[in-house]
Amino acid sequence: MAVYTDVGADELDTFIDGYDIGEMLSYKGIAEGVENSNFLLHTEAGNFILTLYEKRVATRDLPFFLGLMQHLAARGINCPQPVQNKKGEVLGKLAGRPAAIVTFLEGVWLRRADVKHCAAVGDALAKLHLAGADFAKKRVNALSVEGWRPLFEGCCERADNVQHGMKATIEKELDALEKSWPRGLPQGVIHADLFPDNVFFLADKLSGLIDFYFACNDMFAYDAVICLNAWCFESDFSYNVTKGRALLQAYAKVRPFTDAELEAMPLLARGAALRFLLTRLVDWLDVPPGALVKPKSPQEYLRKLRFHQKAKSVQDYGVEAKELVA
Amino acid sequence: MAVYTDVGADELDTFIDGYDIGEMLSYKGIAEGVENSNFLLHTEAGNFILTLYEKRVATRDLPFFLGLMQHLAARGINCPQPVQNKKGEVLGKLAGRPAAIVTFLEGVWLRRADVKHCAAVGDALAKLHLAGADFAKKRVNALSVEGWRPLFEGCCERADNVQHGMKATIEKELDALEKSWPRGLPQGVIHADLFPDNVFFLADKLSGLIDFYFACNDMFAYDAVICLNAWCFESDFSYNVTKGRALLQAYAKVRPFTDAELEAMPLLARGAALRFLLTRLVDWLDVPPGALVKPKSPQEYLRKLRFHQKAKSVQDYGVEAKELVA
Repeated sequence: MAVYTDVGADELDTFIDGYDIGEMLSYKGIAEGVENSNFLLHTEAGNFILTLYEKRVATRDLPFFLGLMQHLAARGINCPQPVQNKKGEVLGKLAGRPAAIVTFLEGVWLRRADVKHCAAVGDALAKLHLAGADFAKKRVNALSVEGWRPLFEGCCERADNVQHGMKATIEKELDALEKSWPRGLPQGVIHADLFPDNVFFLADKLSGLIDFYFACNDMFAYDAVICLNAWCFESDFSYNVTKGRALLQAYAKVRPFTDAELEAMPLLARGAALRFLLTRLVDWLDVPPGALVKPKSPQEYLRKLRFHQKAKSVQDYGVEAKELVA
Repeated sequence: MAVYTDVGADELDTFIDGYDIGEMLSYKGIAEGVENSNFLLHTEAGNFILTLYEKRVATRDLPFFLGLMQHLAARGINCPQPVQNKKGEVLGKLAGRPAAIVTFLEGVWLRRADVKHCAAVGDALAKLHLAGADFAKKRVNALSVEGWRPLFEGCCERADNVQHGMKATIEKELDALEKSWPRGLPQGVIHADLFPDNVFFLADKLSGLIDFYFACNDMFAYDAVICLNAWCFESDFSYNVTKGRALLQAYAKVRPFTDAELEAMPLLARGAALRFLLTRLVDWLDVPPGALVKPKSPQEYLRKLRFHQKAKSVQDYGVEAKELVA
């Protein structure tokens, strides 16, 4: 749920006067995006999304995120485009918070994706990686291997309250990943959070990607396995090889994987599972008992982690290495 | 916050196929309306609001609410208009809940209303009362005087935890109102919840009224004092006579009050304050500690109640009786 800050019509009117988008006709807080306050804004020029950045997003990162969206949109990636105000700036201030207006993307996110959607996601992710190659700004991935232990230390004493044995599993996995985390794989700008609610479809065609607020510089193959985790497991947490194969093949058609990336894939998938297990665990323990907002289940990612721990090669993801290289 | 039920794109597509509003382009849960789940729906035919009725709204009342909106819209009141599906029905079923699509109203609700807005509300309320006169369906006001004691009995033991002395004040007031509650005043369809978030403005002009889910048959003057409570007190809970006078005068210009209505006004205002004090108290005590959703303050309505207890006539609301009659 995502309206942390309400905005008055007067102050919004004044804010919008700074843009060339006509008079405001309506605005409504929308229940999407977890980190920020989002409003659907209707003006004489059409529909827009107004975002107020809340404290979980660092202000210093905003030029990276907004600049990236501009960069990607200019290279044909269908993503929200920051609207420049009359001074040529994309970042303003509203209700005491950094704020931006971006273009509105048509499309709906899928509550139940099938194989062709997974293929479309693989294709779009690879195109995103290529389009971001010449983006000049950099942003370190604060949620990569170096960031995991601090997260764990903040919540390890209570992990077993969520599920018995969780603490030991995470601890062992952390030790292993810190020792063997791959280095030197192809890197660039990654989305890092391409879950179903961040991908829009119109009549089964992928129509756009949103929410670049975890984007950073990291390994491309790591982004691919984040998607594998997010798109290719069923609601009973079983891995769907057909979906996984479709996603990886579609990705490789646009940007073939290197042998080193494929070899590292099970390990990267374990890391991707651990990263979401940890942030979900922190959020889970952070919510007061009886709260009306239900955080996402950490157990789901414990199950995914265990699946990846058993995987030995990309074959275990339903695909032959030779299908994924140049 | 108002998305209790999520809807999948597939099932929504199927639902929309039953209407003549083109293909769906997007839908987003919106953070408005407390009782139901609301989505802003964009189709080839434009913007609409999709509402899923949750358990707090009785299914048997839906034909009254939807029929009333159709009735009022046909008589020039700018309110959401239920869209008929291909079978000519306005009420359908989606995600296991009764659901309706209504037209989208442009406009924004005012976080800070001034005198001219209060006048516009008085004018619109009177027009609503006249337009509803020949509406055939009836709905008893479950939140009138007979409904207050049961509400109080459910929460009286904890009322003093919210504010010391609240229990005794409510009890005494309940006794008084049950004895002297006015009967025989002009009646008809009332909105019963015309708070600022239910009134839209565009450039200071009232552009529409929404949320008819408390509408019922009751005294017109009671509806007027609900508005007085909702629009004419400042954030420090002081009564603004200029606003009150503007609202009542604008109302009376369209529908003059009777002498009996004016005489009963302080008592009606006490009842209107008690009604919202009680429902807010119930909601306040109902929310688990630490919850992320903050219910509205009951104290605000205790303060308003005390103001009205001191009022002796409409003069205390800043206006002479002779200005408000035919």
